[in-house]
Amino acid sequence: MKEKFSIGIDFGTESGRVVIVDVKNGNEVSSQIYKYQNGVIRNKLPNTNIYLEPDWALQDPKDYLNVLKYAVPEALVQGGINPKDIIGIGIDFTSSTLLPVRVDGTPLCFLPEWKDHPHAWVKLWNHHAAQAEANMINEIVRNIDIALLNRYGGKINSEWFFPKLLQILNEDPSLYTAADRIIEAGDWIVWQMTGIETRNDCAAGYKAFYSKRKGFPQSEFFAKLHPRLEDVIDQKMIRKITPHWHQAGTLSEKFAKWMGLPPGIPVAAANVDAHSAVLGAGVSRPNIMVIIMGTSNCHMIMSKNEYIVPGICGCVEDGILPGFFGYEAGQPCVGDLFAWFIENQVPEKYTKEAKERNIDIYKLLEIKASSLKVGENGILALDWWNGNRSILADADLSGLLIGLTLTTKPEEIYRGLIEATAYGTRKIIQSFEDNGIHVDEIVACGGLPDKNELLMKIYADVTGREIKLAKSSQTSALGAAIYGAFISGKEQCGYSSLTDAIQSMAHMKNISYKPDKNNMIIYDNIFKEFEKLHDYFGRQYNDVMKKLKSIRLNVR
Amino acid sequence: MKEKFSIGIDFGTESGRVVIVDVKNGNEVSSQIYKYQNGVIRNKLPNTNIYLEPDWALQDPKDYLNVLKYAVPEALVQGGINPKDIIGIGIDFTSSTLLPVRVDGTPLCFLPEWKDHPHAWVKLWNHHAAQAEANMINEIVRNIDIALLNRYGGKINSEWFFPKLLQILNEDPSLYTAADRIIEAGDWIVWQMTGIETRNDCAAGYKAFYSKRKGFPQSEFFAKLHPRLEDVIDQKMIRKITPHWHQAGTLSEKFAKWMGLPPGIPVAAANVDAHSAVLGAGVSRPNIMVIIMGTSNCHMIMSKNEYIVPGICGCVEDGILPGFFGYEAGQPCVGDLFAWFIENQVPEKYTKEAKERNIDIYKLLEIKASSLKVGENGILALDWWNGNRSILADADLSGLLIGLTLTTKPEEIYRGLIEATAYGTRKIIQSFEDNGIHVDEIVACGGLPDKNELLMKIYADVTGREIKLAKSSQTSALGAAIYGAFISGKEQCGYSSLTDAIQSMAHMKNISYKPDKNNMIIYDNIFKEFEKLHDYFGRQYNDVMKKLKSIRLNVR
Repeated sequence: MKEKFSIGIDFGTESGRVVIVDVKNGNEVSSQIYKYQNGVIRNKLPNTNIYLEPDWALQDPKDYLNVLKYAVPEALVQGGINPKDIIGIGIDFTSSTLLPVRVDGTPLCFLPEWKDHPHAWVKLWNHHAAQAEANMINEIVRNIDIALLNRYGGKINSEWFFPKLLQILNEDPSLYTAADRIIEAGDWIVWQMTGIETRNDCAAGYKAFYSKRKGFPQSEFFAKLHPRLEDVIDQKMIRKITPHWHQAGTLSEKFAKWMGLPPGIPVAAANVDAHSAVLGAGVSRPNIMVIIMGTSNCHMIMSKNEYIVPGICGCVEDGILPGFFGYEAGQPCVGDLFAWFIENQVPEKYTKEAKERNIDIYKLLEIKASSLKVGENGILALDWWNGNRSILADADLSGLLIGLTLTTKPEEIYRGLIEATAYGTRKIIQSFEDNGIHVDEIVACGGLPDKNELLMKIYADVTGREIKLAKSSQTSALGAAIYGAFISGKEQCGYSSLTDAIQSMAHMKNISYKPDKNNMIIYDNIFKEFEKLHDYFGRQYNDVMKKLKSIRLNVR
Repeated sequence: MKEKFSIGIDFGTESGRVVIVDVKNGNEVSSQIYKYQNGVIRNKLPNTNIYLEPDWALQDPKDYLNVLKYAVPEALVQGGINPKDIIGIGIDFTSSTLLPVRVDGTPLCFLPEWKDHPHAWVKLWNHHAAQAEANMINEIVRNIDIALLNRYGGKINSEWFFPKLLQILNEDPSLYTAADRIIEAGDWIVWQMTGIETRNDCAAGYKAFYSKRKGFPQSEFFAKLHPRLEDVIDQKMIRKITPHWHQAGTLSEKFAKWMGLPPGIPVAAANVDAHSAVLGAGVSRPNIMVIIMGTSNCHMIMSKNEYIVPGICGCVEDGILPGFFGYEAGQPCVGDLFAWFIENQVPEKYTKEAKERNIDIYKLLEIKASSLKVGENGILALDWWNGNRSILADADLSGLLIGLTLTTKPEEIYRGLIEATAYGTRKIIQSFEDNGIHVDEIVACGGLPDKNELLMKIYADVTGREIKLAKSSQTSALGAAIYGAFISGKEQCGYSSLTDAIQSMAHMKNISYKPDKNNMIIYDNIFKEFEKLHDYFGRQYNDVMKKLKSIRLNVR
């Protein structure tokens, strides 16, 4: 049988990643990374002296186009793949990452008259400057549609679609008027590739108030958020929603040329990166938690039923796979926390020792921290260096360290930080279980599990669960390649269901991390202390974290 | 008039320091440091393989003798001083630093049959292995003599005389039997120099339950602590108490030879180092707080009246100067905290920058931290890395950091640590003022004030008080030289009172640090948060610090 391939394209925070996989078994035959030239724009607009406010995070859509233009052809060449053997393309994207565009899809930031407006550029998922809008929306929606808010754990956050859209309207109303569409970047890139404008169900569901059963909220709902939002769906969005395992269109002549592919290849609707990773991690059954561990942690789990789970990010019917309610939760600071520690808190004698031993500093700290028994570091942390996303959903919380003594060593704190993120994950698991969704298994994927064995052991011991590892190191891109293949139809791809495709194309590693009973007992005790601190500082019995932030902002 | 000189000898933790001063004006004409060869013995007994338990801290009395043998003659030679012009000698010592000796003064650790017993050596003030004895004593004394306990802020700690003595009895009863005396090292060295055995009132008062009005507690009291302690005063100590501004004896032939001095020079009774520093800081009036700022902070203040001040270390009549009740409080971790931070938490790029700028790393951090506005660091700490000595008097508390974010820089934490020690000092001031002793002025001395301008500014802003600086950088040794001069009598020294001697011989610097009103307002707000955390974690509403310590000990 002739080999067939599909392409998965993962648009991440710093770069876009292209993988080409064998449709038969999911084997990655080629991959390429394109690092965005303008990366994350935080300081000033490219090639200008226009400075941005704190908490802004923008991107340049040209970088997304360049992923298609440069990384796809290169991957084809490097893999020695005949472009004619590509049967489908899937893409996944960070979310909610959105941009204002003309009716023909042209980003406003490409136009001379708008390019100097910060609001003309892509707002990246971690643009946190719409907190005021998020607070306002939460307050209103709590009174007018609590059922909607409950689908989002009781609170939406500033990373989502409507707070960002409302920030544009509030701060640059003329630009808002000039925008024919405000669109998720994932949907925009699919539109560019196919000429067909649609919205993927995943981003619409998790980030933009859409549900399969109820559609978008009514005009009266939006009018209460802002008079000019009354017809926002028809004025700035469209109502056509495509499930992410359906075809959005086929590759246009222009893009086919750019990408070194024949035109007409099916292109799937976009998907959110974390959700795509569930497929790439080989999970197609309910009650298995997939944790994507990288700069942040995303916790994804499916259930046959709909439950209200306080503090999670969202629950969307068919949001991960058709037939299930897909739940998402997260911790906004995991790899980022360790990177902060390395950057700011590790002394020269350690960096020297790492150099002498010819290992990187992470590895040195891991070795040193691994030699400690559970509980021996005497350190407990709250992992809120970047706020808390799930359970408390409060960006204004901050990190805490307790148990410091004159004999405390850097590796003891480092271990404490890892443990804190594990306790945070355990809180999330607990919230799912307390509200009806049992977590039978955990599958880890993302950048961290392969890099840090200690981290995995600690997560197993703290959660008291076996942790399996996804085989692919690029689960989001592999997930995209899976539905990219699936949309080509059974005749092409050989799969009659998405589940079949997942089972054949995504795999687990042979190793797994099993909890140690003695360690579990000690961690159970420390976790009780974590919970006390979590509630004391997180549920406003003591609002010192917010007070310190507000004093800090006032004196600046 | 012929120039006259006195010698002050300060026996510190790492070294002994000799200063020779002009009796007329206190000018330091010569000084020498002798670094103890065996320093602080923490690991194993010198020249043996006998290892010590955690929390032990011993010293070798030979090091003390060497200070007299080597540093005194050298100081005389370097200063070009005629030994005949020396009119008196004062010494001050860390406390409670004690050793077991024979009836002739020979330390048991000098004897072949005892030298391999850890308990034969000097127990240094920061030997913390008698915590169990301290706990036991507190429990019993609370029931039988609360008035005595109230003189010590409601709780004695493991650094004091009787916990350490009881530890010897508990752990090495035969050595306890063999000891004819258990004696403060300060009293021992004076005994050696003069051949006269006495006890100084300061160490006896602050560390060993003695008071001018009541003497030592009765036999029944000691019998309740341990049956074998019933006659401890008569069996292991003596009842002769000499005020530290009185002569203990005169310099013996043997020691005069060693020290390069004529025999017969008056030698004052010993004094505790922190108390001696008050005289050296030029303070002879009540209601002026002297803060000796070094590895730790000691807060000394006098009052005409006796008050019960909860949480302080001790109140002793005439304990600092005759005619006043002398109060002592302290923070066990100040310079040590900053040293810990530098050692463990400052990244290579900072140490490199310091090298490039040719400044030390403390100075670099001070420069960076000084550029921050008050409140801008967003960090709040509890300064309990070495427990809390005053107010809470709890060695099992530990350090806390709150307000950490992904943008937190080392200098922001460093500033937060300095601020935490200033809040700790403010708590102590508050406790004095709440209980009747107004703090009119603050005078700082010790190693830190000259080294760290930012520290002094922060202390002024946090306490809302002007801080003056003692002129001498060796206030303990200068204090010893002052009463060393005074005991020679008016004819010799020219002073008819100790106050006159202090006023002529000790001085202030011209500069002082005044609080900034705007900064005070912000620090007032943050201090409220400090107090909340202080009480929440310190008064056992949340005993997580103790739980972490106990888990840590259990798993080791």
